[in-house]
Amino acid sequence: MSTQLSEGVAGRVTDAMLEVSRAEHVPPERVREEVAAGRAVIPLNHARSNARPAAVGRAFAVKVNANIGCSAELSSRDDELDKLHAALSAGADFVMDLSVGPDAAEMRRAMLAACPAPLGTVPIYEAFSRAAESMEDLSDDLMLDVIREQAAEGVDFMTLHAALLREHVPLATARTLGIVSRGGSILAEWMMLKERQNMLYERWDEVMDICFEHDVTVSLGDGLRPGCLADAGDAAQFAELDVMGLLVRRCRERGVQVMVEGPGHVPFGDIQMNMEREQQVCDNAPFYVLGPVVTDIAPGYDEITSSIGGTAAAYYGAAMLCYVTPAEHLGLPTLEEVRRGVYAARIAAHAGDVARGLPHARERDDAMAKARLDFDWSRQFELALDGASARARYESTRVSADGEHDFCSMCGRKFCAVRTSRRLSGRE
Amino acid sequence: MSTQLSEGVAGRVTDAMLEVSRAEHVPPERVREEVAAGRAVIPLNHARSNARPAAVGRAFAVKVNANIGCSAELSSRDDELDKLHAALSAGADFVMDLSVGPDAAEMRRAMLAACPAPLGTVPIYEAFSRAAESMEDLSDDLMLDVIREQAAEGVDFMTLHAALLREHVPLATARTLGIVSRGGSILAEWMMLKERQNMLYERWDEVMDICFEHDVTVSLGDGLRPGCLADAGDAAQFAELDVMGLLVRRCRERGVQVMVEGPGHVPFGDIQMNMEREQQVCDNAPFYVLGPVVTDIAPGYDEITSSIGGTAAAYYGAAMLCYVTPAEHLGLPTLEEVRRGVYAARIAAHAGDVARGLPHARERDDAMAKARLDFDWSRQFELALDGASARARYESTRVSADGEHDFCSMCGRKFCAVRTSRRLSGRE
Repeated sequence: MSTQLSEGVAGRVTDAMLEVSRAEHVPPERVREEVAAGRAVIPLNHARSNARPAAVGRAFAVKVNANIGCSAELSSRDDELDKLHAALSAGADFVMDLSVGPDAAEMRRAMLAACPAPLGTVPIYEAFSRAAESMEDLSDDLMLDVIREQAAEGVDFMTLHAALLREHVPLATARTLGIVSRGGSILAEWMMLKERQNMLYERWDEVMDICFEHDVTVSLGDGLRPGCLADAGDAAQFAELDVMGLLVRRCRERGVQVMVEGPGHVPFGDIQMNMEREQQVCDNAPFYVLGPVVTDIAPGYDEITSSIGGTAAAYYGAAMLCYVTPAEHLGLPTLEEVRRGVYAARIAAHAGDVARGLPHARERDDAMAKARLDFDWSRQFELALDGASARARYESTRVSADGEHDFCSMCGRKFCAVRTSRRLSGRE
Repeated sequence: MSTQLSEGVAGRVTDAMLEVSRAEHVPPERVREEVAAGRAVIPLNHARSNARPAAVGRAFAVKVNANIGCSAELSSRDDELDKLHAALSAGADFVMDLSVGPDAAEMRRAMLAACPAPLGTVPIYEAFSRAAESMEDLSDDLMLDVIREQAAEGVDFMTLHAALLREHVPLATARTLGIVSRGGSILAEWMMLKERQNMLYERWDEVMDICFEHDVTVSLGDGLRPGCLADAGDAAQFAELDVMGLLVRRCRERGVQVMVEGPGHVPFGDIQMNMEREQQVCDNAPFYVLGPVVTDIAPGYDEITSSIGGTAAAYYGAAMLCYVTPAEHLGLPTLEEVRRGVYAARIAAHAGDVARGLPHARERDDAMAKARLDFDWSRQFELALDGASARARYESTRVSADGEHDFCSMCGRKFCAVRTSRRLSGRE
């Protein structure tokens, strides 16, 4: 038995590391070092022969995760599989199945079969779904069973809210908006009802055994992430972060790959501090952030509020961005909203990579600038993040005749600055 | 004759300053000080009895400008007036009429009559439109005539590319993407053809006389703003900025209000430097930025790339953001794209204001958080930037029955974290 981490520590470059090396233009030995040091993870369950390896860590391009899954009241397996394909074709690097309700297990198996990207879950959702009648039926044994079963099925990474301790709950209930993490709120209520410590925290050694056996990457869930600007950076958030730091070390000691989830809702100017504090407390474990959204007043546009925060996060220290769709705070996203959410998050990831000077990141921007100078529209659409939409939009207000291509409807022929610029530089 | 600046310097609080004071929750004397010091402008032509005063400066909320106007090949007066109303109803604080072509003057008069927000123009567009056949017919006398006529008609602020000097042109033609400013490219070609210095720079004293007489605010145009990341922060951009700094001082000496336009395309990590350098070189004149967009690869999504850069700009020093629509780099925006562009820019302006701690800015976010905790959907839609769209989106996947309101289709009833949180905090 081994994990990418244990192999890396033992000095061995795995096949997955070689694939990452090729995809990221980083030498294999460097990939191994990053994984061995815990600065990067390659979530890839032993059972997932159909998944392509991908790395999360600051030495590599910032990744994008898309959340898919049916809620108990809405959406079907086919709808969600359509969204999965939409997310992948828009360029999502990782996918999480967040399905809840009676069909969740079936949904997950279908997603595992269909998804070439590493797939994550939040096992507490299935455990609580199976605790049919009430919170009373939820137990640590059931929780462990679910983790074991999902690990055996091939889940590549699991969000585990193990750092939300019983003593943190009063810090959270005093907040403006309390707990906005589904998993966090379930565990908090369970701890209060049962008068027990967090079951995941208490049985962490067993969780570790399962994760090591299947090489499931732990994604430490931030059950106390702020759900509004007023709660950002408060005692609850940072109390949980400190426990995350301890759990990161326990994962590494056991050879289990681990990343850390982060906020949430954060004022723009506090994002740098959040990234640096996580890296310090969690010894540079890869940071996987949800957004962060930088204002609460834009429901319907939260793919924008989160791409703003996501860019700052990518620049200052995050390694993966969870997309946020325009449906956030309003409902379950549609297929088109899933696409839009992925594109917005990819913009943020790329803008962050360019800004931090990741090697090769800006080549595509520079090629686009050249294609614009050359009025090579086909090349522009090839280079565009969403080329099909860009082409359709261009054609919809195209004013030039066939064979003409050296202006667009924004400025028209006479006022086109690029035409003028080409004359000035002697290009025509 | 007087301007807001000359009155402020003379120690008088004008009616416009009083209106700004009420709108911004800033004492009248503070408004006067900001205007007198040149750190803020209130663009308001003496002839514009139908316009409401609004201030651009760091002591006030960051403003949003929307560009409207027909191109020579596309769009009509009615289309553009519809876009004007869409931009205003989406919350644009300022509007620029960028129309070109034979109908541009008629368009502007219609916009001045219809627009309660301060209205700006780029006079070189009309001058070049009237130079019917070629660049040969463009002259400094024609340019001055156009400025004089537009000032008499009531234009509140004018973009004047007076800082792009003849000696800067070779710096620009050596770039990846040359000159992407319409006005800048026209002036550059004119200077090369005529072997003359910039006509606006040469006749600046006369420009000042006109602007002082009508209280037209000068917006120093950045003809050499970078049009791609590869050109950002280059010698051309900063050579022009240095001349802008000189012209800011000449405006102030003459009692003419002045703001400074800025980039453009800028890598995310360079935005802070750009804002600080402008403030230093231009002695804290209000900075009015176009975007900046933070990557070149997302045509069709440039309202997002620019809201990312715009937030950083608003945080680090800009006082007004020019919107960028999803049509940027592809064509003239449609009405719906205008709306979307305004909302994206307003998100950036607000997120910047919240982050820099502008008094009162976060009150609306905090009220939204409370409405979310209370499941008060009507209040959420009242507080939302685009409440009508948010309401329609919520209703489209609503799963609760009439009279139920305490969950949405994202998580459903059982998994709603806010429901759980309310129980935990004893709220139900």
